[in-house]
Amino acid sequence: MVEVICTVDVVLLTIRDDTLMTALIEREHAPFAGQYALPGGYIHAEEDADVHASAMRVIAGKAGIVPPYLEQLATLSGPGRDPRGWSLSIAHYALVPCEIIENAVGSQVHLLPVDRLPALPFDHARIIGMAADRLRNKSQYSSLPCFLAGDTFTLPQLQRIYEIVLGEKLNKVSFRRKVTEMDMLEPVEGCFESAGAHRPAQLYALKSSSRSKLMLLERGL
Amino acid sequence: MVEVICTVDVVLLTIRDDTLMTALIEREHAPFAGQYALPGGYIHAEEDADVHASAMRVIAGKAGIVPPYLEQLATLSGPGRDPRGWSLSIAHYALVPCEIIENAVGSQVHLLPVDRLPALPFDHARIIGMAADRLRNKSQYSSLPCFLAGDTFTLPQLQRIYEIVLGEKLNKVSFRRKVTEMDMLEPVEGCFESAGAHRPAQLYALKSSSRSKLMLLERGL
Repeated sequence: MVEVICTVDVVLLTIRDDTLMTALIEREHAPFAGQYALPGGYIHAEEDADVHASAMRVIAGKAGIVPPYLEQLATLSGPGRDPRGWSLSIAHYALVPCEIIENAVGSQVHLLPVDRLPALPFDHARIIGMAADRLRNKSQYSSLPCFLAGDTFTLPQLQRIYEIVLGEKLNKVSFRRKVTEMDMLEPVEGCFESAGAHRPAQLYALKSSSRSKLMLLERGL
Repeated sequence: MVEVICTVDVVLLTIRDDTLMTALIEREHAPFAGQYALPGGYIHAEEDADVHASAMRVIAGKAGIVPPYLEQLATLSGPGRDPRGWSLSIAHYALVPCEIIENAVGSQVHLLPVDRLPALPFDHARIIGMAADRLRNKSQYSSLPCFLAGDTFTLPQLQRIYEIVLGEKLNKVSFRRKVTEMDMLEPVEGCFESAGAHRPAQLYALKSSSRSKLMLLERGL
């Protein structure tokens, strides 16, 4: 029986300079040595509990971080996608605040704008497109973009993150009503951020219940 | 490197007796010989174009059919789900009208109600639960349940299919408005079904454009 090459790839998404970015690494080994590509690697059956663990191990190794959100995206497969042979990749996507990536020790990743990527090897461009679509779709009716924010944030900062992900301006009143409906935030007692001429804005954090599961809207944003 | 066992499993869903059913086969070989399980099998890298093709081959072999709708569900993995070793299964789900299953030549499948299954080997009960959830979620805002109807059907018959999938009664006027909004059907010229004391009902078929892609609602049913 012809062997199947089993890998995972991870689209690590973050926001920097008001732009959705993905983390790429420069490949050390053939095929495509020296080219930018998604962080990925073989499944290590001798140590990985499942493919989620494989993806976490890959991210820890290449980016030096533990992402707060990681989800399976799809499995891509076939004889043509990897010159080494018939392969499958269980593609994942992860969300992480930019500071975590930038402060990581031993990181090999480079952040590039999702919408202005160079040519990428394998089917990595397609995988990144799928991840951006999934993020955009889920963000219309869930708390998902909160995983792109830091530990604490103001409501205008969170609204800006939603707007960058969705690619459109949102109405402030309606956005705040939806955020309240999702019941995903709690104010950080006594913590405010001063914002120039405006009065200081309350800082919020994700409720711990919203850290382990997505909060959903009945009707989208 | 420890080998990864690569398989596909397919949850073949249909409606019989106003009930959502799944197709199971009696396993011929160990492990779990003689037990009911999902149709599945190894990826054949020497012949399969991708895992979608693997799933189509498995369904053709075990059920003798080509399902009108087949979609990847998720990849399940780990050392504990198959006694033969560290395995992954790319789980798929398929929708098919019941007549196609019942008229198939060489079929080995048995239809059982999704909500009243016996104990199943591997993680097949979990996979079936995931498939039923996915079907239910997507049916709230798409043309997906149409793939459970035959070539032609009346609007009351289609509404009944949606109701069985969603597990709730739907308002007739609102259902018809949503069906019109999805623009997925065309009347079959001159074809009516007589329905006892009622006047004959127009027969409809899926538009060919709706056969290759799902039609979506802005707001759910």
